[in-house]
Amino acid sequence: MAIRTREEYIKSLLPYNKKVFTNGDRVTDPLDHPVTRSVVEATAKMFDMANDPEFKDIMVAYSPYINENVNRNVQISRSREDLEMRYKMARLTSQYLGTCNYRCVGQDTTTAMASVTWEMDRDLGTDYNTRLTRFIEKMQREDLACSGAVTDPKGDRGLSVAKSAPEDYLRVVEKKSDGIIVRGAKVHQSGAIAANCTMVIPNQTLQSKDEADIALSFAFSGDTEGITYITQYTPFSAERMEAKDDVYKLGNPLYGQRETCIIVFDNVFIPWENVFMCGEWEYAGKAVERFGKTHRMNCGGACKVGYQDIIIGAAMVLAEYLGVNNKNHVKDKFIDMVAMQQTSWCCAIAAAAYGFEEPLGSGIWMPDDMFGNVAKYNTAHNFWQTMKLAGDIAGGLAVTMPSEKELDNPETAEYIRKYYRAHASAEKRMRMTKVLQNWVAGLHGVGTWQGAGSIEAQRLMIRRLMDSEEYKKLAKIMAGITD
Amino acid sequence: MAIRTREEYIKSLLPYNKKVFTNGDRVTDPLDHPVTRSVVEATAKMFDMANDPEFKDIMVAYSPYINENVNRNVQISRSREDLEMRYKMARLTSQYLGTCNYRCVGQDTTTAMASVTWEMDRDLGTDYNTRLTRFIEKMQREDLACSGAVTDPKGDRGLSVAKSAPEDYLRVVEKKSDGIIVRGAKVHQSGAIAANCTMVIPNQTLQSKDEADIALSFAFSGDTEGITYITQYTPFSAERMEAKDDVYKLGNPLYGQRETCIIVFDNVFIPWENVFMCGEWEYAGKAVERFGKTHRMNCGGACKVGYQDIIIGAAMVLAEYLGVNNKNHVKDKFIDMVAMQQTSWCCAIAAAAYGFEEPLGSGIWMPDDMFGNVAKYNTAHNFWQTMKLAGDIAGGLAVTMPSEKELDNPETAEYIRKYYRAHASAEKRMRMTKVLQNWVAGLHGVGTWQGAGSIEAQRLMIRRLMDSEEYKKLAKIMAGITD
Amino acid sequence: MAIRTREEYIKSLLPYNKKVFTNGDRVTDPLDHPVTRSVVEATAKMFDMANDPEFKDIMVAYSPYINENVNRNVQISRSREDLEMRYKMARLTSQYLGTCNYRCVGQDTTTAMASVTWEMDRDLGTDYNTRLTRFIEKMQREDLACSGAVTDPKGDRGLSVAKSAPEDYLRVVEKKSDGIIVRGAKVHQSGAIAANCTMVIPNQTLQSKDEADIALSFAFSGDTEGITYITQYTPFSAERMEAKDDVYKLGNPLYGQRETCIIVFDNVFIPWENVFMCGEWEYAGKAVERFGKTHRMNCGGACKVGYQDIIIGAAMVLAEYLGVNNKNHVKDKFIDMVAMQQTSWCCAIAAAAYGFEEPLGSGIWMPDDMFGNVAKYNTAHNFWQTMKLAGDIAGGLAVTMPSEKELDNPETAEYIRKYYRAHASAEKRMRMTKVLQNWVAGLHGVGTWQGAGSIEAQRLMIRRLMDSEEYKKLAKIMAGITD
Amino acid sequence: MAIRTREEYIKSLLPYNKKVFTNGDRVTDPLDHPVTRSVVEATAKMFDMANDPEFKDIMVAYSPYINENVNRNVQISRSREDLEMRYKMARLTSQYLGTCNYRCVGQDTTTAMASVTWEMDRDLGTDYNTRLTRFIEKMQREDLACSGAVTDPKGDRGLSVAKSAPEDYLRVVEKKSDGIIVRGAKVHQSGAIAANCTMVIPNQTLQSKDEADIALSFAFSGDTEGITYITQYTPFSAERMEAKDDVYKLGNPLYGQRETCIIVFDNVFIPWENVFMCGEWEYAGKAVERFGKTHRMNCGGACKVGYQDIIIGAAMVLAEYLGVNNKNHVKDKFIDMVAMQQTSWCCAIAAAAYGFEEPLGSGIWMPDDMFGNVAKYNTAHNFWQTMKLAGDIAGGLAVTMPSEKELDNPETAEYIRKYYRAHASAEKRMRMTKVLQNWVAGLHGVGTWQGAGSIEAQRLMIRRLMDSEEYKKLAKIMAGITD
Repeated sequence: MAIRTREEYIKSLLPYNKKVFTNGDRVTDPLDHPVTRSVVEATAKMFDMANDPEFKDIMVAYSPYINENVNRNVQISRSREDLEMRYKMARLTSQYLGTCNYRCVGQDTTTAMASVTWEMDRDLGTDYNTRLTRFIEKMQREDLACSGAVTDPKGDRGLSVAKSAPEDYLRVVEKKSDGIIVRGAKVHQSGAIAANCTMVIPNQTLQSKDEADIALSFAFSGDTEGITYITQYTPFSAERMEAKDDVYKLGNPLYGQRETCIIVFDNVFIPWENVFMCGEWEYAGKAVERFGKTHRMNCGGACKVGYQDIIIGAAMVLAEYLGVNNKNHVKDKFIDMVAMQQTSWCCAIAAAAYGFEEPLGSGIWMPDDMFGNVAKYNTAHNFWQTMKLAGDIAGGLAVTMPSEKELDNPETAEYIRKYYRAHASAEKRMRMTKVLQNWVAGLHGVGTWQGAGSIEAQRLMIRRLMDSEEYKKLAKIMAGITD
Repeated sequence: MAIRTREEYIKSLLPYNKKVFTNGDRVTDPLDHPVTRSVVEATAKMFDMANDPEFKDIMVAYSPYINENVNRNVQISRSREDLEMRYKMARLTSQYLGTCNYRCVGQDTTTAMASVTWEMDRDLGTDYNTRLTRFIEKMQREDLACSGAVTDPKGDRGLSVAKSAPEDYLRVVEKKSDGIIVRGAKVHQSGAIAANCTMVIPNQTLQSKDEADIALSFAFSGDTEGITYITQYTPFSAERMEAKDDVYKLGNPLYGQRETCIIVFDNVFIPWENVFMCGEWEYAGKAVERFGKTHRMNCGGACKVGYQDIIIGAAMVLAEYLGVNNKNHVKDKFIDMVAMQQTSWCCAIAAAAYGFEEPLGSGIWMPDDMFGNVAKYNTAHNFWQTMKLAGDIAGGLAVTMPSEKELDNPETAEYIRKYYRAHASAEKRMRMTKVLQNWVAGLHGVGTWQGAGSIEAQRLMIRRLMDSEEYKKLAKIMAGITD
Repeated sequence: MAIRTREEYIKSLLPYNKKVFTNGDRVTDPLDHPVTRSVVEATAKMFDMANDPEFKDIMVAYSPYINENVNRNVQISRSREDLEMRYKMARLTSQYLGTCNYRCVGQDTTTAMASVTWEMDRDLGTDYNTRLTRFIEKMQREDLACSGAVTDPKGDRGLSVAKSAPEDYLRVVEKKSDGIIVRGAKVHQSGAIAANCTMVIPNQTLQSKDEADIALSFAFSGDTEGITYITQYTPFSAERMEAKDDVYKLGNPLYGQRETCIIVFDNVFIPWENVFMCGEWEYAGKAVERFGKTHRMNCGGACKVGYQDIIIGAAMVLAEYLGVNNKNHVKDKFIDMVAMQQTSWCCAIAAAAYGFEEPLGSGIWMPDDMFGNVAKYNTAHNFWQTMKLAGDIAGGLAVTMPSEKELDNPETAEYIRKYYRAHASAEKRMRMTKVLQNWVAGLHGVGTWQGAGSIEAQRLMIRRLMDSEEYKKLAKIMAGITD
Repeated sequence: MAIRTREEYIKSLLPYNKKVFTNGDRVTDPLDHPVTRSVVEATAKMFDMANDPEFKDIMVAYSPYINENVNRNVQISRSREDLEMRYKMARLTSQYLGTCNYRCVGQDTTTAMASVTWEMDRDLGTDYNTRLTRFIEKMQREDLACSGAVTDPKGDRGLSVAKSAPEDYLRVVEKKSDGIIVRGAKVHQSGAIAANCTMVIPNQTLQSKDEADIALSFAFSGDTEGITYITQYTPFSAERMEAKDDVYKLGNPLYGQRETCIIVFDNVFIPWENVFMCGEWEYAGKAVERFGKTHRMNCGGACKVGYQDIIIGAAMVLAEYLGVNNKNHVKDKFIDMVAMQQTSWCCAIAAAAYGFEEPLGSGIWMPDDMFGNVAKYNTAHNFWQTMKLAGDIAGGLAVTMPSEKELDNPETAEYIRKYYRAHASAEKRMRMTKVLQNWVAGLHGVGTWQGAGSIEAQRLMIRRLMDSEEYKKLAKIMAGITD
């Protein structure tokens, strides 16, 4: 079977030849830095889950590409059932990681390119799909952790793509017989520092062949020459660094925050066999739209639903610890949170239920365009509401809690135990409050809103997808107006 | 084929022996009163649609009960596909009626009873399911328009059912060898005055055998002795009465408002063959919950989505008529409305997609409990928002518009034509504004909120259905708490 | 004292020489038509209240214009205290009328013109303010019911004012030695059919002298030659017409809906003494903005708060009648409604508290620009929410209630009494449900949203008024950025 | 003049005899620890502002207590104008601190006690007010930084106060001739570690004399024997500790987060002259309610409005830096944020405008009860919305931004400068993004919600304050119901 163990995965990262910087310092061993280690741990957990009988049904899939069972993280949806299992996996991994699984974007970008390359080959006579199929086979066979890179730096958004500076969009700067040279960067990239490889796709619809140089999709191995990774640094990075090995004083002890980086491509060579789009500007929009709806179903409608499982659960536990679980306003808040969560979930379900082969004949299945976008759109709004409501139950302590180190401080431990005890011990209460702090007083509101594209991207798609003529037709029939 | 024509249906209502009162007067011919006629017209349209090649795919279904194609309005869901087609029918008929199709509740109550009677027969050795199957076969063979009656008057809601006055709940007052005598009323009943028969089910979960007399389900023919119908009367009734035959001056010219009535049962005899529950108080809750989730999927998640099709369309047409369709805030409002509409639709889709046979072995398919409830819950809130947004586009004229009769008044017609013309003629603008008035300045906000049970009923169900233990388990794993 | 009685007011309307049409018919006696009579009754009630010791403190004001106490309806705000009393009057009259008091717009337009004419005279050497002062003195001395007309028909809103058709904006078509000839229309006009006179002001900011012809303000006596009034016609008009004298079967028995009309000016002569702006296009925007903020304080922040008093009260009474007043979700809804209501009220209070003399030296006091707009903005949104919540408590009966005529129908009365009784008699319950129906299932959502200008007008003003430089300055100080 | 300089204030903290712990360690010099130093800096800034001619009008007030100008932070409101200036100060200091000014709670608790002690002395013949007056005089004369402590640990909230464990509420454990001994704790306390003294008041309404021991108000000097302070520890604490002196890499460089602590009273002696309530359980509720409404006006309606000034400003600057400031959805978000901000501000204004002397004769002025609560209520909800909208503009970089240290890293600096440049330099963009990160991805949502009491406290007050009888009366008049 093609499914690796956590140990095999970790071993595959070494020697760690990636050029990675965090908070001004080079990271030479990803396991040696508390922040980068959390990314490795999260990725490794995905391998654990695929090998765990409890989760196998969801985490493992049969792949016709290699005629074997594969890790669902590297599966390409080729049926409605694949789509269904895909979103179920997204929720499941979120439930147990409480952070990014780091293989989701890689899978969704690859799937989108599987669809688009098929279409390009059909329309243009290229052989991108053949190359990509080979890449998929390798990824499945070797169970590679593949991340995905989408977002260009963009620079001044007031300028059109064509008028932007060269560095604002990742682009091909030279085409050679054996491959291409690319220069630029991709930002907001999740997990590449702990991945075996990364799939790159364009960031937006392009308008003309003047923009052809940024119509670019390719895969690269993580330690390719010329690539630099610079990681995010947030208060939560600092907290983890301060905590050192004492991770159980953190809100997500093992897996931490979704850690991202900017990937800089400084004249990087990519061999043709790993290039899946290069100049076909008319297809850039298709790539990003198909990735968008797929990822909005998975990331918006399912992954965040898994996070909400944790948030709601933590609020429920804490309500019991505080002795308020039977208060009406608390019960009402649970109903509110669950109703919002289930709404997002319904959108993911509908997106898959109305999924279809796109393009017809390609064998690749995509979710419904409207519902995929609506899933993310609802989630973006609802997640902030959930934070508000869970934050109500968390109470002021979610902000004012002392360090759990005080529990080991002989001068204060007794006080802490005495004054923070409620219906449960101070230790338990503080631990669960810390979990909630992570969700209601941190990065997740903005992260959820912006991930898979901010709300305006979904609004734009909803506008494009709405069938105005059908709406108007029905209104005119009702009014008895014929024109 | 078992599908009737509009003419056959209308003929079946005559002679009109029902005892019907409206605004203090007896209605002896439902076609002769402008309000009751709208109900007949709406019901008749349903027969038209089943005979229309354009709509047949959705409106007609194969029924194993009689091994024939039947009107989907009398179909009982026996597969996931049936559930899917059922909600599609709900949206479709709303799109063309802009009001209740008057057979929806009858179908959903019958389906719920098909499930519950099977369970009662299995558990209790009764033969309710056999009787009901015979009733369904007859209904399908004769394509009967069957309405459904659920809501008891309830009286003082501060009292428990057991302490309520006898008249507050419809109940059996005598059991005889050939049938039962029932007394009481059902309120908020849609369409019975134009139906061939009506299915009655209990209104709520019952607590003890002291309440057994109201654990009652039966069907009755519309003109059964002892039954009185008293219709609703609203400003829209008055408007239709004032309009007389000039219905094109109304917001929903042909089909009007959802017209309801109170049905009074004054010692009515129901033969045993039409009785499907009588005293089995433990099963009353199952009947209402199964009806609830089914109807919340159809009525909340689909029927109202069809109404939103009309509302959004009317706002789009009017925006064009006013020349504002390209303004940003107008386009934003369309996106807002569509996003809400599609969200409800997703919930209906998910409810059917996760539908299941209930009870196992019964052959009856029910939607997912949570999603059915969430569909209605979202719609209730979103419909008010939609009214607000569409009302913005409708403009003040949705309230201040003169009577269209002025267009025929030589002293004012020219003024009206001149001053109400916009990017379209005054006539068209007024006609479309009238359509929107019906939706944004009338009965639909409260109707949508209360129909299929008010929000609190859904909140109660969401609370019951949420799997708190699973939520808490996941939070504790994240926190590293084991207890 | 200058304050008239109801009788004096009604007498002043006769003989009724206004040319008024409603639902296609001429109204020759406003007391003889059930709809127009409600407008007269509402206006008359205002005189009653000014003569009622209970309300005098608010309804009567000392006017320096004529050195006498006057009806506050004709008072011009000349101090912060005037502004405070003005908004208090707005709430008070709404509480007792449940509809428009029909003198509010007349007062606010006159006040705006008092400010703008002073500025025009100062800047341009005109004598508009002198004329207006004489008009105000007469209005106060004779206690005239003066309505206000603001909104032009506008036609195709996609066109600029300059490119619109002549009929789209009321305009001067001839200037003569003794006066001017005006042609066009004003729409959405409240109460003119029962007023002694009407104040006309421009509808918007103008861009150039090409638009000077519509920079127009004047007053006219209600029965001026060439003027035609065509009233609105809604389902509620029909209901009142059907009810005839039996008004206690209506939701607002005595005073009905806010009844508006379109006023058509077909070459109407206005003597110079009643002209307060004619061609000064640079001042049109000032007139509408000053009217806007004043009216948004009064109409948005206070009048609607008075309506909410009734709505909340009716929901509270009905909750008692139904026996649900102690249920948590019902109590929560009261809190929600009251919080929203008080928020709007706070905005009105703040608008007056930060009121100021504008222009300095004019003696005219205006509310704060931002807060006046914010008052209306909040109310527009909150009113729909209030309808939703009150509609929840009203229950399905707010839509499905039979006519109260059934209480007099020997064949149904007993049933109605029996089955609609709750914790109160069926009569009381139906009566209060009817009151709520008027608010939650009728014209008030759209009316409140559009009245005093729709939301987009307030948003535009908020954008203009926000002090972006100050906001940015503070952020840069925080960031330590100096540029 | 009684107003101290920053230097005088800082000197007054030394020698630093308070027993303070943070993250498990003792703090011996508050200036030597990066977190505690931010509290001293924020407090010191308040003295700077009182001495700054630009801010003097607001920051300095005449006090009749000592017949001198005093720092408004120690002023007691004795007129409506005092209330107005008080809320203006709250907004002003928030604008420049971006965090707690640490004297606000001390002032509002002292003011509440000035009112309640006057009432106790009048009713009970105590001399609490005399003592408090002496305390106020001293505080004003010496310009003491006085914090306020309100919240008890409470323990299991499912238990009544009477059934709670002794440690759950701060209580008097012994009354002696010269003073009292108190034991327990106060949590969520802002700024005590950098204050000269602290005012303690009860946390809630008490029900019986069994709870008299916790009806307790007193002031104490910061270094009183037996008191221990344990500070909060959050990701932002860690970030500041990691940053060391390089504070300009933080979101609020100088003043940091609102830093709170738990204050433990381990058998602390308080002399009678500093005791202002001890056992008068009937007055505990008055103390907390008067504090509540005052603080909700200042903290909810004004302080957070000052924060919103910074947030909105930062979003505006960043929108310019990104080149998106002219996009419609961005402008719309500014309007949304400003409208919400101004709404809260209106509530504060109204609360002061309807302020009144309470009790009559006491000379102490309190804001309106309803409006003070509504101010906080609106702000709590709106702040989360503001975070959502500002977070949209901040973009993904608010989460994914690398450390600003990379700008000094020769291996990455050029990349960062190149790829994060937009319409402004990468440095500026990152700096402003960091400011926004602090507001949209941190502690402020929960902090604002919980500060001055969570939403449920305001809802409870709104319910108590609503005049149901008046509402119902008006509805019955409208319905024509007299009973």
